[in-house]
Amino acid sequence: MPQALPQTIAAAEFGRCADAIAAAARELAALGWTPATSSNFSMRVDADHAAITISGRDKGRLGRDDIMLIDLHGRPVGTDARPSAETGLHTQVYRRRPEIGVVLHTHSRTQSVASRLFAREGVVRLEGWELQKAITGYTTHESVLEIPVFPNTQYMPELEARVDAWLDAGRPLHAYLIDGHGIYAWGRDMPEARRHLEALEFLLGCELDLRRLSA
Amino acid sequence: MPQALPQTIAAAEFGRCADAIAAAARELAALGWTPATSSNFSMRVDADHAAITISGRDKGRLGRDDIMLIDLHGRPVGTDARPSAETGLHTQVYRRRPEIGVVLHTHSRTQSVASRLFAREGVVRLEGWELQKAITGYTTHESVLEIPVFPNTQYMPELEARVDAWLDAGRPLHAYLIDGHGIYAWGRDMPEARRHLEALEFLLGCELDLRRLSA
Amino acid sequence: MPQALPQTIAAAEFGRCADAIAAAARELAALGWTPATSSNFSMRVDADHAAITISGRDKGRLGRDDIMLIDLHGRPVGTDARPSAETGLHTQVYRRRPEIGVVLHTHSRTQSVASRLFAREGVVRLEGWELQKAITGYTTHESVLEIPVFPNTQYMPELEARVDAWLDAGRPLHAYLIDGHGIYAWGRDMPEARRHLEALEFLLGCELDLRRLSA
Amino acid sequence: MPQALPQTIAAAEFGRCADAIAAAARELAALGWTPATSSNFSMRVDADHAAITISGRDKGRLGRDDIMLIDLHGRPVGTDARPSAETGLHTQVYRRRPEIGVVLHTHSRTQSVASRLFAREGVVRLEGWELQKAITGYTTHESVLEIPVFPNTQYMPELEARVDAWLDAGRPLHAYLIDGHGIYAWGRDMPEARRHLEALEFLLGCELDLRRLSA
Repeated sequence: MPQALPQTIAAAEFGRCADAIAAAARELAALGWTPATSSNFSMRVDADHAAITISGRDKGRLGRDDIMLIDLHGRPVGTDARPSAETGLHTQVYRRRPEIGVVLHTHSRTQSVASRLFAREGVVRLEGWELQKAITGYTTHESVLEIPVFPNTQYMPELEARVDAWLDAGRPLHAYLIDGHGIYAWGRDMPEARRHLEALEFLLGCELDLRRLSA
Repeated sequence: MPQALPQTIAAAEFGRCADAIAAAARELAALGWTPATSSNFSMRVDADHAAITISGRDKGRLGRDDIMLIDLHGRPVGTDARPSAETGLHTQVYRRRPEIGVVLHTHSRTQSVASRLFAREGVVRLEGWELQKAITGYTTHESVLEIPVFPNTQYMPELEARVDAWLDAGRPLHAYLIDGHGIYAWGRDMPEARRHLEALEFLLGCELDLRRLSA
Repeated sequence: MPQALPQTIAAAEFGRCADAIAAAARELAALGWTPATSSNFSMRVDADHAAITISGRDKGRLGRDDIMLIDLHGRPVGTDARPSAETGLHTQVYRRRPEIGVVLHTHSRTQSVASRLFAREGVVRLEGWELQKAITGYTTHESVLEIPVFPNTQYMPELEARVDAWLDAGRPLHAYLIDGHGIYAWGRDMPEARRHLEALEFLLGCELDLRRLSA
Repeated sequence: MPQALPQTIAAAEFGRCADAIAAAARELAALGWTPATSSNFSMRVDADHAAITISGRDKGRLGRDDIMLIDLHGRPVGTDARPSAETGLHTQVYRRRPEIGVVLHTHSRTQSVASRLFAREGVVRLEGWELQKAITGYTTHESVLEIPVFPNTQYMPELEARVDAWLDAGRPLHAYLIDGHGIYAWGRDMPEARRHLEALEFLLGCELDLRRLSA
């Protein structure tokens, strides 16, 4: 809980967001998608603020006190807690996509391996899977769903610039992988963000299986 | 619960079916076979009606209110809820096979990958596995169990026609895969349908493993 | 519970065996090693009797009423229940090995796939694994642990003859695979039988992984 | 609980360590990393003593009574219980690294298979993975994390000598694999040791997956 919330944000509203993030984090941790305290999760609170997981906590044991408030430039609000180094990747999505309410970043083995395997091509092309329809806007398995794979860096502005470039080119973006790292996925609310993340984990896993079998 | 049940269907009977569907859905979701709100499940209520999952719900959290009544042409009965687009594939089985009481459609990774891998051949041939005996009518591992793989389409009548053609040719049919999509399996009651689905998931997984190892 | 226990067997003693079998069955089912009502489990009650799972029950929901008493020729004692067709493979172990108290037969995917892969050689040779020491009598990874793979048949006396031949040749036997089917493992008591089964599942899985990686 | 604790160790302190070990053991067993009663876990109690799991217990059912006290030469203190044959590998870490508070030894399938696969090279080189940052002292995926693979032996002094040689050469050591056996990992406290172990399990799994896919 922040020590001091801005007057425009009710404690109950922040608490609701924090509880939703903590519940999702515990469920995703139980799936093994947040190894070794990695991964982070956020939810938009209003037009200018988001709630986000505090860095370094065990995602399988997350509670309301492990969530902090930030503004959309990633600065802590009403708290001394330190947000994750990757906070800027969350706030970028909220700034550029006003309709987005939840951003989820996980590190499953499938996500990490797929990111390495497709890094050279820079993109995973998904085609022919019924489950592509789980991504908002996709209505047929005959569509092509592209998930970019960006090079990893410890310098976040470089990653933000790559995301900006992709969006500025007018290409659809529902999620992205970072090489050797994990995935960022999002949605208007928690159910949509979870559905997108779960569908992409599934589809990446299927692609890896098909590659193993077609070798 | 439908807003108005036909007089011939007791509320308790519909409730019993809805509870059985919801319980099975939660268990199959826990196995990871219903990713991203996919999959649907139904149970025959009487000669002319079935209970079926309402489209788009999270199968891991399903309750009685997520189940609706339909007639065997897939039309909602006593409710404004929308059945799944694939409802016609359920009712087709009930119309053509009067002894069938339960139809289960899931999307496990194994099912989806196997459907892509065997799509060109149009069939998975299972042979030499003791667990083939879990399919009603099979008494030895020396039998051959054929599971057709039909091309995926968003136009259900096309899929129904392929199923009809297979049945009209007099070929045994206990389940079918749809390319890039998932499996349909069924049985006289929930235990038989679950046993068939579980056995096929297992056998498809074994076949994929053997292919990986024999490459 | 048998309808009538022989006077020499106390109801409490039979109940203790039945509870131990049911508990083990539920735990092994939760691991996915008993798909589609397959697998069966038994425990010696005295020099002439064993308790064994009744055929066809869901191993994930097993209770005391799913266990029956048999003599060591596989005949039901004090009950009309039908024992599994494979009962003879259990009683054979009890007849030939007086010190054995528990026989476990499971069908995991790893066990089934390994049985197909090694069927031609007729044996899995395990060597160089620390976990071989989990098998009673093995004290070093430098030992060789041989698990025979017998051809599958629906005619049990044929399988019994193969087991007898192996034993009559004086070869050590701690467990065996049946091609396309599963594993039989045993021990003096439930902890030893479970340890043997768990170690062999692990070692077979490691061997399959190594083959995939060395291809 | 030891029968007699040294005067310098409070019963409550030993109990706290024993509970922490037992809780960790149960959680790691639930992940399948301690098959067939294998694996052992320890925690430093003071400068001269550690608490460690008693040999041969089922790690999924561990309680306080399954933990014993030893000195840092591996001798039982105030108890007749037998420590694991591998106790010397635990105490070696405590003797050489005064800041280390917890040592974890597990046998997951991934760990065992990786140890066989990389045994000839004698080392696993991890590079390019974001999760390397979960190891204390690593701040970028561009670092190289080396995990040595030592030959297995039933003679512990031989293994201790290899560990000593690695450390005496001034090479960083955060964990090591033993060929065909498992992993040793450690940390200043239980959360750090768990984070290291979990990160290495993940990274080894990713490396195996990449090898399968790049074949």
